[in-house]
Amino acid sequence: MIRIAVIGYGYWGPNLVRNFQETQDACMAVCCDMNPQRLEQVHTKYPWVELTTEYDKVLKSPEVEAVAVATPVATHYEFARKALEHGKHVLVEKPIAASVAEAESLCDIAAKRNLTLMVNHTFIYTGAVRKMKEIIQHGDLGDLYYFDSVRINLGLIQHDVNVLWDLAPHDIAILDHLVEERPVSVCANGACHIGNGLENVAYLTVYFNTGLIAHFHNNWLAPVKIRTVLVGGSKKMILYDDMEISEKVKIYDRGIEVSDPEHLHHTLIAYRLGDMWAPKLDQTEALRYVTQEFIDCIQTGRRPLTDSISGLNVVGILEASEMSIKRRGREVKL
Amino acid sequence: MIRIAVIGYGYWGPNLVRNFQETQDACMAVCCDMNPQRLEQVHTKYPWVELTTEYDKVLKSPEVEAVAVATPVATHYEFARKALEHGKHVLVEKPIAASVAEAESLCDIAAKRNLTLMVNHTFIYTGAVRKMKEIIQHGDLGDLYYFDSVRINLGLIQHDVNVLWDLAPHDIAILDHLVEERPVSVCANGACHIGNGLENVAYLTVYFNTGLIAHFHNNWLAPVKIRTVLVGGSKKMILYDDMEISEKVKIYDRGIEVSDPEHLHHTLIAYRLGDMWAPKLDQTEALRYVTQEFIDCIQTGRRPLTDSISGLNVVGILEASEMSIKRRGREVKL
Amino acid sequence: MIRIAVIGYGYWGPNLVRNFQETQDACMAVCCDMNPQRLEQVHTKYPWVELTTEYDKVLKSPEVEAVAVATPVATHYEFARKALEHGKHVLVEKPIAASVAEAESLCDIAAKRNLTLMVNHTFIYTGAVRKMKEIIQHGDLGDLYYFDSVRINLGLIQHDVNVLWDLAPHDIAILDHLVEERPVSVCANGACHIGNGLENVAYLTVYFNTGLIAHFHNNWLAPVKIRTVLVGGSKKMILYDDMEISEKVKIYDRGIEVSDPEHLHHTLIAYRLGDMWAPKLDQTEALRYVTQEFIDCIQTGRRPLTDSISGLNVVGILEASEMSIKRRGREVKL
Amino acid sequence: MIRIAVIGYGYWGPNLVRNFQETQDACMAVCCDMNPQRLEQVHTKYPWVELTTEYDKVLKSPEVEAVAVATPVATHYEFARKALEHGKHVLVEKPIAASVAEAESLCDIAAKRNLTLMVNHTFIYTGAVRKMKEIIQHGDLGDLYYFDSVRINLGLIQHDVNVLWDLAPHDIAILDHLVEERPVSVCANGACHIGNGLENVAYLTVYFNTGLIAHFHNNWLAPVKIRTVLVGGSKKMILYDDMEISEKVKIYDRGIEVSDPEHLHHTLIAYRLGDMWAPKLDQTEALRYVTQEFIDCIQTGRRPLTDSISGLNVVGILEASEMSIKRRGREVKL
Repeated sequence: MIRIAVIGYGYWGPNLVRNFQETQDACMAVCCDMNPQRLEQVHTKYPWVELTTEYDKVLKSPEVEAVAVATPVATHYEFARKALEHGKHVLVEKPIAASVAEAESLCDIAAKRNLTLMVNHTFIYTGAVRKMKEIIQHGDLGDLYYFDSVRINLGLIQHDVNVLWDLAPHDIAILDHLVEERPVSVCANGACHIGNGLENVAYLTVYFNTGLIAHFHNNWLAPVKIRTVLVGGSKKMILYDDMEISEKVKIYDRGIEVSDPEHLHHTLIAYRLGDMWAPKLDQTEALRYVTQEFIDCIQTGRRPLTDSISGLNVVGILEASEMSIKRRGREVKL
Repeated sequence: MIRIAVIGYGYWGPNLVRNFQETQDACMAVCCDMNPQRLEQVHTKYPWVELTTEYDKVLKSPEVEAVAVATPVATHYEFARKALEHGKHVLVEKPIAASVAEAESLCDIAAKRNLTLMVNHTFIYTGAVRKMKEIIQHGDLGDLYYFDSVRINLGLIQHDVNVLWDLAPHDIAILDHLVEERPVSVCANGACHIGNGLENVAYLTVYFNTGLIAHFHNNWLAPVKIRTVLVGGSKKMILYDDMEISEKVKIYDRGIEVSDPEHLHHTLIAYRLGDMWAPKLDQTEALRYVTQEFIDCIQTGRRPLTDSISGLNVVGILEASEMSIKRRGREVKL
Repeated sequence: MIRIAVIGYGYWGPNLVRNFQETQDACMAVCCDMNPQRLEQVHTKYPWVELTTEYDKVLKSPEVEAVAVATPVATHYEFARKALEHGKHVLVEKPIAASVAEAESLCDIAAKRNLTLMVNHTFIYTGAVRKMKEIIQHGDLGDLYYFDSVRINLGLIQHDVNVLWDLAPHDIAILDHLVEERPVSVCANGACHIGNGLENVAYLTVYFNTGLIAHFHNNWLAPVKIRTVLVGGSKKMILYDDMEISEKVKIYDRGIEVSDPEHLHHTLIAYRLGDMWAPKLDQTEALRYVTQEFIDCIQTGRRPLTDSISGLNVVGILEASEMSIKRRGREVKL
Repeated sequence: MIRIAVIGYGYWGPNLVRNFQETQDACMAVCCDMNPQRLEQVHTKYPWVELTTEYDKVLKSPEVEAVAVATPVATHYEFARKALEHGKHVLVEKPIAASVAEAESLCDIAAKRNLTLMVNHTFIYTGAVRKMKEIIQHGDLGDLYYFDSVRINLGLIQHDVNVLWDLAPHDIAILDHLVEERPVSVCANGACHIGNGLENVAYLTVYFNTGLIAHFHNNWLAPVKIRTVLVGGSKKMILYDDMEISEKVKIYDRGIEVSDPEHLHHTLIAYRLGDMWAPKLDQTEALRYVTQEFIDCIQTGRRPLTDSISGLNVVGILEASEMSIKRRGREVKL
């Protein structure tokens, strides 16, 4: 039985508490938040959970073996670092930290102390992404050509980060998970209309040496909610539409066949229009798998599916995108 | 009665002939194509139209007052230039020419000779775009924030131009038509997977000094056909979905209200979710308005709605995008 | 402060308890269920609520002023009747009872004792239906022509009632609420494929003397989930699609104009295609309005929006439909 | 080479002429219409086709071997009968005749004279319906439970027949084609709002002895255009949506499993949610297959896929529906 402390009971913390509560071999032991009113909410639902406004108490409690950090991004590093330094396993919300330097530091500490450090890239654990991973890993798509994601809506505007730091981590994590190739550089463009210097609409391109190109479109001021990922390959293509109630993942047996790439004329390109297939997806709440994965990794010592390296990869792209966006799309090497 | 010659009877030429045939004060007089078999098709449908494989005959015919050029992009300039030099009014398919230099040259000749030079940006004449223009001109959207277009499908791959030159002119022309602001620079990213060096997937960003940002996503290898334009303003937002059978244009009374941009906290941004409205649109074939506009401008001497300047604007952005895409998104000033 | 007892803590009971808990002037006092395990769930969330497996205790408790019945349909009558006879106000889940005789009996008792008897036709309190009511009441639709509802999915099959008794009450209640006209007869058709004699797919037509016709399609074995209501009038038409995330209600300014109904030719019928409009809807959980309405009616003595008469109207149509369906669509007068 | 005469060059005739023109072994020889202006249109496009306003000339022409009748429904019988009596093969638009008596008479004459009599149930020849037939014939759906069709829009109102006679033949023909079972009775309900006594909205139920139930919803006054067919079976289910641009046919691997139909409890019914699959469909214009089938059957003497019996079946259901609708849903045996 691993005793867990959840740090931060704001927007996402309640979901963590609820899921740890229902995870085998996990025991929701402590909840820590600076705001006593929020702690009261914990008490109403889970009267047995210990409450505190002081993080030090969590750190010093010998009973707490693992900490889940659900605080604002800017504070991820401090909370996670202290927990690791006190010998506790750590699960951090996405993105794992506010900079590459911070992320690398966390990786180092965890490695040295042989502790589990996991980032909560929740989407990786959805039935949709796991099915996509299975299909891509099996080679069904052929060579990967492009990964195009759109995540836009009229959403809550963050005041400490731009729209890429807020919305893109989900899709960058999906990209990082689905493809083996490593990106080489990024270009980002965007604009700010709210007067605080933080982009509320942004476009990010990620280049790979294999010819794969990835693109992310994020917008806080869109009239409609769109959440799609298109993955195009030489053999098949996937459309993942997270707003669909069922059939979130569609695999299209479509493409072109280039008979003779040396001498390219119209007649040598043949279009292929085949079936479409929407596999049944596991409907389990993704967060349940996250908490289970965390506990399993602590118990067995294996690396999590969304380990600190994937956390670092995502932050690497975000940090580069911020440099690029300030220079109007100038390519930034990774 | 203006006597018209249509040059090129391939994919688009038949539509031009059919529409000129039904346009008041226009007389479909000559059709010219290098391929005699195509001319036979003209003869079957319009036995009274004169046919020729030699452009010179068209140029020298004193009866032909106006020429519509529907040939491959690379040849637009030569066909249009010669027609203007022979004193004929010219309608050219989009894009007006293959380079800014060519486009400027055509503008000059037409101006000197006081001839009508019009580019066939067909979408400008659709009920959808005309309604959008009306709404934006009326100020309903407030300050313009972004223009986001997606035009992707599993389409015929062109062998002489990349996907931006093929698909983006439609949407760049719409942008050029809808907004008064002039763009200042572009960044473009893309990739080629067919081995001919021409990008088959591309992303183009266009910057304005007003804060408006425009973005274009074009792809020849997408499993699904998407044709959308999102226009976001401070007061309202438009979604134009050309794949919708009816309700192609939806106006959303949605946005945010920033009470005090100096001291930005969460509490000062208020979300506004209002009604959505889909106006009835004129369903007339856009090309009918194009041919009518051409004839009217010849007769009255006024500038066409899609004049050579709009043609030049579109080519300017395309040419800059090509420079940028080769340099991985490097900003290119306009 | 009205002290409430909720009877039945199965599928729907928890929602009632949660909403009464948050309703002004209501006090969730007692929860009664035959199953002690369910009562434990109540205790975990609401430790202050009194629990019992014996309905008699509720009836005899002088502190309980009102009872909400969320038990299987067959038992509605007994639970509601006893509560009324013990002087308690009653809210019953839909349908109000299993027969017209039962429903009439409840109406009588409530009337004699001057008690509030309300049926939980939840949909009436949604933002969508309230907006539709407003529009229809205002006369925007003109003469009402048809009301067509489809409510199908691959859903939980009930074992005590057929699919009409299970799914149609929602839409019959909406019909009853939206139109002033009283129906005169019903015809129903259906089929049973599960071997228990209860129809799992059914079609119900309701006739009115005004020319209005209503139709209901219900199916437990459909591969897709559809929940739509079309309301057609002489001036405008409404499409209510409950599966839409936003824009659930669309008003179409469409119709025909019959210039001279005496001498009907093609040329005298003019089609009218106008705008579409999707009003912003109140997103509040409908059940919150239900519990508030119940409390308000108890306090003021006014009749509820969904009073016992509307409950009786719905049961009247259901009972007639059952007679008709057994006789293969034979018309049954109401 | 079979020489064809097309009778009636109104809405549908031009499509017939165009397709016969392109059909192997067919020769578009004569076009007959009472309106000389329409015949002029034929002449413009097909100057070699003989034109006449007198049907007798067609009948007496020894060169005309086959006649295609595309006139108003009320006249189908007379035109077809005369052609058969003059020894000509006949293709009739749907429905084959205006009554069962007429349809039977045509069947008799054709049989006696050993002539091909075919009805143009065009939808049977679409890629969508042919794929559905293949799947159902293969037994993939298991036992057939229901066939539910909706065909509604704001459409041209016919002045000689009600909405069922106008729109339902398409879907009744599909039903007749897809299922082996023979229907036993029908019930129909509807209403007229235009003042001419012809129903503009109608619902038709068709009963089978096997437990299969079919239902048709037709409406000329709907604000949206819907054309769907749901076919539910014990193993799989099909959704055919003709308004979809691609993926018109979707096969859902969904259903329920009743373990022990004798003792039915909740626990014995298991839900099955599997994959969805949208097969690639033949995009060829259906009418091309129709004209080819007609020619082939004339040449080989075999019965057409849509023979006079299928024409008779459809008219049988329509005639019964008219009797039922006048008696408010009274069951009419077939």
